[in-house]
Amino acid sequence: MRLLVVNANTSEIVTGKVAAQARASTSTGTDIVPVTGTFGARVIGTRAENAIGEHSVIDLVARHAGGCDAVVIAVSYDTGLRAARELLPVPVVGMTEAGLLTACMLGGRIGVVVFGRRVLPMYQELVASYGLSARIAGWRVLESTAPYTQDTHDALDREIEATACDLVEKDMAEVVVLTGAVMAGVPARVQTAVPVPVVDCIACAVRQAELLVQLNLPKPTAGSYALPSAREMVGVDPAIAARFAARSPG
Amino acid sequence: MRLLVVNANTSEIVTGKVAAQARASTSTGTDIVPVTGTFGARVIGTRAENAIGEHSVIDLVARHAGGCDAVVIAVSYDTGLRAARELLPVPVVGMTEAGLLTACMLGGRIGVVVFGRRVLPMYQELVASYGLSARIAGWRVLESTAPYTQDTHDALDREIEATACDLVEKDMAEVVVLTGAVMAGVPARVQTAVPVPVVDCIACAVRQAELLVQLNLPKPTAGSYALPSAREMVGVDPAIAARFAARSPG
Amino acid sequence: MRLLVVNANTSEIVTGKVAAQARASTSTGTDIVPVTGTFGARVIGTRAENAIGEHSVIDLVARHAGGCDAVVIAVSYDTGLRAARELLPVPVVGMTEAGLLTACMLGGRIGVVVFGRRVLPMYQELVASYGLSARIAGWRVLESTAPYTQDTHDALDREIEATACDLVEKDMAEVVVLTGAVMAGVPARVQTAVPVPVVDCIACAVRQAELLVQLNLPKPTAGSYALPSAREMVGVDPAIAARFAARSPG
Amino acid sequence: MRLLVVNANTSEIVTGKVAAQARASTSTGTDIVPVTGTFGARVIGTRAENAIGEHSVIDLVARHAGGCDAVVIAVSYDTGLRAARELLPVPVVGMTEAGLLTACMLGGRIGVVVFGRRVLPMYQELVASYGLSARIAGWRVLESTAPYTQDTHDALDREIEATACDLVEKDMAEVVVLTGAVMAGVPARVQTAVPVPVVDCIACAVRQAELLVQLNLPKPTAGSYALPSAREMVGVDPAIAARFAARSPG
Amino acid sequence: MRLLVVNANTSEIVTGKVAAQARASTSTGTDIVPVTGTFGARVIGTRAENAIGEHSVIDLVARHAGGCDAVVIAVSYDTGLRAARELLPVPVVGMTEAGLLTACMLGGRIGVVVFGRRVLPMYQELVASYGLSARIAGWRVLESTAPYTQDTHDALDREIEATACDLVEKDMAEVVVLTGAVMAGVPARVQTAVPVPVVDCIACAVRQAELLVQLNLPKPTAGSYALPSAREMVGVDPAIAARFAARSPG
Amino acid sequence: MRLLVVNANTSEIVTGKVAAQARASTSTGTDIVPVTGTFGARVIGTRAENAIGEHSVIDLVARHAGGCDAVVIAVSYDTGLRAARELLPVPVVGMTEAGLLTACMLGGRIGVVVFGRRVLPMYQELVASYGLSARIAGWRVLESTAPYTQDTHDALDREIEATACDLVEKDMAEVVVLTGAVMAGVPARVQTAVPVPVVDCIACAVRQAELLVQLNLPKPTAGSYALPSAREMVGVDPAIAARFAARSPG
Repeated sequence: MRLLVVNANTSEIVTGKVAAQARASTSTGTDIVPVTGTFGARVIGTRAENAIGEHSVIDLVARHAGGCDAVVIAVSYDTGLRAARELLPVPVVGMTEAGLLTACMLGGRIGVVVFGRRVLPMYQELVASYGLSARIAGWRVLESTAPYTQDTHDALDREIEATACDLVEKDMAEVVVLTGAVMAGVPARVQTAVPVPVVDCIACAVRQAELLVQLNLPKPTAGSYALPSAREMVGVDPAIAARFAARSPG
Repeated sequence: MRLLVVNANTSEIVTGKVAAQARASTSTGTDIVPVTGTFGARVIGTRAENAIGEHSVIDLVARHAGGCDAVVIAVSYDTGLRAARELLPVPVVGMTEAGLLTACMLGGRIGVVVFGRRVLPMYQELVASYGLSARIAGWRVLESTAPYTQDTHDALDREIEATACDLVEKDMAEVVVLTGAVMAGVPARVQTAVPVPVVDCIACAVRQAELLVQLNLPKPTAGSYALPSAREMVGVDPAIAARFAARSPG
Repeated sequence: MRLLVVNANTSEIVTGKVAAQARASTSTGTDIVPVTGTFGARVIGTRAENAIGEHSVIDLVARHAGGCDAVVIAVSYDTGLRAARELLPVPVVGMTEAGLLTACMLGGRIGVVVFGRRVLPMYQELVASYGLSARIAGWRVLESTAPYTQDTHDALDREIEATACDLVEKDMAEVVVLTGAVMAGVPARVQTAVPVPVVDCIACAVRQAELLVQLNLPKPTAGSYALPSAREMVGVDPAIAARFAARSPG
Repeated sequence: MRLLVVNANTSEIVTGKVAAQARASTSTGTDIVPVTGTFGARVIGTRAENAIGEHSVIDLVARHAGGCDAVVIAVSYDTGLRAARELLPVPVVGMTEAGLLTACMLGGRIGVVVFGRRVLPMYQELVASYGLSARIAGWRVLESTAPYTQDTHDALDREIEATACDLVEKDMAEVVVLTGAVMAGVPARVQTAVPVPVVDCIACAVRQAELLVQLNLPKPTAGSYALPSAREMVGVDPAIAARFAARSPG
Repeated sequence: MRLLVVNANTSEIVTGKVAAQARASTSTGTDIVPVTGTFGARVIGTRAENAIGEHSVIDLVARHAGGCDAVVIAVSYDTGLRAARELLPVPVVGMTEAGLLTACMLGGRIGVVVFGRRVLPMYQELVASYGLSARIAGWRVLESTAPYTQDTHDALDREIEATACDLVEKDMAEVVVLTGAVMAGVPARVQTAVPVPVVDCIACAVRQAELLVQLNLPKPTAGSYALPSAREMVGVDPAIAARFAARSPG
Repeated sequence: MRLLVVNANTSEIVTGKVAAQARASTSTGTDIVPVTGTFGARVIGTRAENAIGEHSVIDLVARHAGGCDAVVIAVSYDTGLRAARELLPVPVVGMTEAGLLTACMLGGRIGVVVFGRRVLPMYQELVASYGLSARIAGWRVLESTAPYTQDTHDALDREIEATACDLVEKDMAEVVVLTGAVMAGVPARVQTAVPVPVVDCIACAVRQAELLVQLNLPKPTAGSYALPSAREMVGVDPAIAARFAARSPG
């Protein structure tokens, strides 16, 4: 099985972290195919950068999804998720979507840790868009993930542990989700200090993608996720144009 | 990996159907351990029968979950799900919960087919309890699953296909869930006639249980799903009493 | 009028407290018939114990509801409420349901005091199941009701008063509900120290049960609360089997 | 016990119907004191008329609530309910509020019959204001209650029965509420033709008012239902001015 | 263009403040016609006073709306808004409604500052009635607007600034609404100290009223805002009676 | 005042229609500056095309917003709205957002007409993202707007009228919104046949943009709509890179 892991950030460092965790989370026989965005922000952290990222995800899947059995969106705003799910004949899973849905099977209400104040509303809107707002116990903001781009991160690990425990203690969270692609692999490090499960969104996404491939359900031919009939696109990468042109009548 | 599949109906016929579909849906190396309720209704179809079934699920998991890596509740009201999730050290998945959460990754809004008018509110309450009411496109009721206890079921298959298509056509459902343990295996038969994915709840539950085992997350030690300290039980099966007595301090 | 007061805890102490408060809350001519569970937990305080309690409630009403005009569920999770309401030809009221609905006529938003951290989510899920989450101003947890099983409880009374006042002050609660059967009679003791009404759930439940008897509405013959046709039950108390067998066609 | 029954319609005919049903629904020893509005619409049926009715309810309770133990608002928009509840030291119950809350103990979702298309949104807004929208199974509109002001009403009775049954059949309503003060007494006539309980709002309101008197809870001294300190009013009935002037410090 | 600005408080001071801000907020060619209530509370601050205010708004618009192109309700509970909107052939806008809807275009979630503890629930109910509860980031209560009736208000200005900043800091409010007619003109004074837009409800209401006039949409002839057929009113101001009598068939 | 009207469709025909209606809807002294997308779909009608459109909107505003006082997004999915609102120092309004918020002041619940089955879920998700789902009375789908790209459209006008009336009749819609940029100008043509206001989203958006300019509120310096500090972008139009680079520290 081949899983395309799409990082729309134009930064190889994050791709590397995500790919490593993805590989650690897959079953034998699953190949991880990581790709990195070629235009847009280094690390998406604003609404405008995310808007450009939507295009980038389409660009990346148009060029690389061929031959893959499923796609994982490895940007934690699930950038381009619904668009890619519509465009491709294979399952597409968002990392935050997968983390949240998996968390629903692990406890009652979910605590969410977000990195950076200004992105908190973006995650709240994302959760609301999945209809899952009522499942959230509480939110916490930590200010920087910068240490993770370096070698040392003990201090941030401790901060994450304390924050997760605070969600459990004050907000009665029964499972904790750490947002952000850069958090790939962190939950396993902090888990022992937290009394409830800490979900790794990349691990969940890769496993859920495998699960959807195993279920072998067909691409819809009706509704907003069906392939529309062939349509003309202008000014886009030829791979995108080709994919839109090739779409069979819906 | 050993998965306990709990059928709280006191009817071996349904257990057989469920076990067969569960086996067809697992990865190599996963063993399915099906068990059947020893007290209560033949096929749970009322609120009062479901109340007795809650106890039956506790009874079954107390006696049989030892040595298993995860548990699937194979009664479609997800009877005893939260209770078993609290009581056991391994993951527990409800079949309808699993079907709904998996459906969330396959499209926008979900159409649900229910068998029997009087159980419709029970399913609506179940969906609401998961916080997923906003994801439902519409509900349909078919009156009887009786043919499925016989060999022939072509007529009911056709009726299910027509109902699923009606949910797509009129309510814009983008994925369809067939409720009921007795529906195990049916989605695969009717899928070709329906233009959106038709979810098999047993298949989803077994796969999600495998996924949770693979994620290897710890049992919570805080919140409503932690093990409480040892407590005295009276008048219950010794296996239940033993499991409650053995619980470590929370 | 005879009201069956069902305590599914296998502890006579709580039954005594509840029965006393129930008797103090009824009109002349109403007899209180208290019954205590014969199997399960001493005091239900976990999800698994509550699951067994669901069966116990069915067991108790099957054996004792004959000749009674209405039933009050005197376990504060309203254990088995919907099941008993379906099974019996007479009105059934849950103590927490009654407390909440009565509170709705006394002010705007309701503050709820819960005893024990791990049961808070169970009450939140219960309130949500009634569709009343939007009416809740806030929640508070007090850790132990143990003193109430002793003679002295002044200290806990003071703690409850302070907690109720805190709900009024910080969360703008306009009425306060104390959860738990063991709280029967406490609201009257603490009321003078709290500037908004403090609701006694047992008193509300007994009064609402009387009210439903007075309204003299018929048992439904359609929907999920109608009596289904006679069904076979195995391995249950003969009284349960008899009640299920006797049900007229729905 | 004396219950003030407030009809803000300036029409004695409706008052008579309501008073008769109220008297038929009370316990021995309860006196019904019906009053009729002196200004405003004959029968409130528009938003603007209801706005005037808000003042009329304050006028009526200021002049007549003295010596009464509780108040029932007998206009089905529960006109002035929250205002009267704030102003008076005794319980105040709205007839539609009481019907809805009582219905919550009789089944799952509620069907509501409304008389007149243009008032449907007013009732929907009222139900939403109680936080009960999720409990509604469906709405139906019948066009006229005019026959009820005459002696004959068999035809309308039949229409109501058919409409209630339609709510049960198509929308799975498990209890039905007939709105409108003029419907007082009608539920008892149509009940035998409807397979689920049909709630009489006046009967519920009178009984709930009795119940609140029996619970003997104190007037809040905090929150939006406490009495504010004395305030000056201009240009209103002296009884209103007196009641506002007399209010103790909040 | 003539805009009627309706202050149902029987206090000219507030009318003056509102009229000044309204004039400062209008386009060239718009005339502001302020009117003040002739009966009821000096400054509406309780539910009962607001109920009387509902009638007062009808009275004011019946007497003064003739010749005006739109109406602004300048009581911050939007007293009588829906009633006046129904009764009049021209657009009617509530000041809090306008502030909230305008705020929706300026950011994500809205912080609201309320003056006086006991009115907080009234505003929360108002916001809920618009279906906008999910857009609220948080609420804050300041106790008194009394200084604003005097000349000096620097201290309160500072308090408002601190409160608005606290909503931004702790609740992540992205826009702030100051409630209360007496706040007209205050947002402009405090804006520089607050890092997100502070909305002036009177300014928004006047501008939205102009906008609705410019859109030139017709009065509905169906639904709950259409003019009903002529109806008899008793005991009301002749202007009210005339307006109700004149209504064309709906 | 200069308003930038952004059409991310790569089709001049729609831009022309929108610009004409925008000019017809503005006050004297307002200049409309229409721009058309240079890459992506001719007419956005799928999720994937909309994802590309998000980038296109950023591209258009980065290149053209300089010197403009406000921006109107003239794609009816409000494509890129939140992103542009963050990126620019001037107000940004979405056409559907403006239509919906304006409709909230015109009646109770809103009927929405959508053109094309597959985009219905996209609009439902958009409405939900504004927190306005509870304000929707019902949805209707018409299949094609193709005639509007031609000269003749009488047949479609009649179909729209019938559909709007059906929303009023069956779903009790009190105001109707026609979605789609191509509908600019249509509401005025069909209004006389519909008994409730029919909202023109472009007209609303242009007027609301003017209103926001008139209110003269500052750009937020906190929250998710503040300008972040300067950030590096790769592979994008120099105008985009320049705008991101120029952003002042947040």
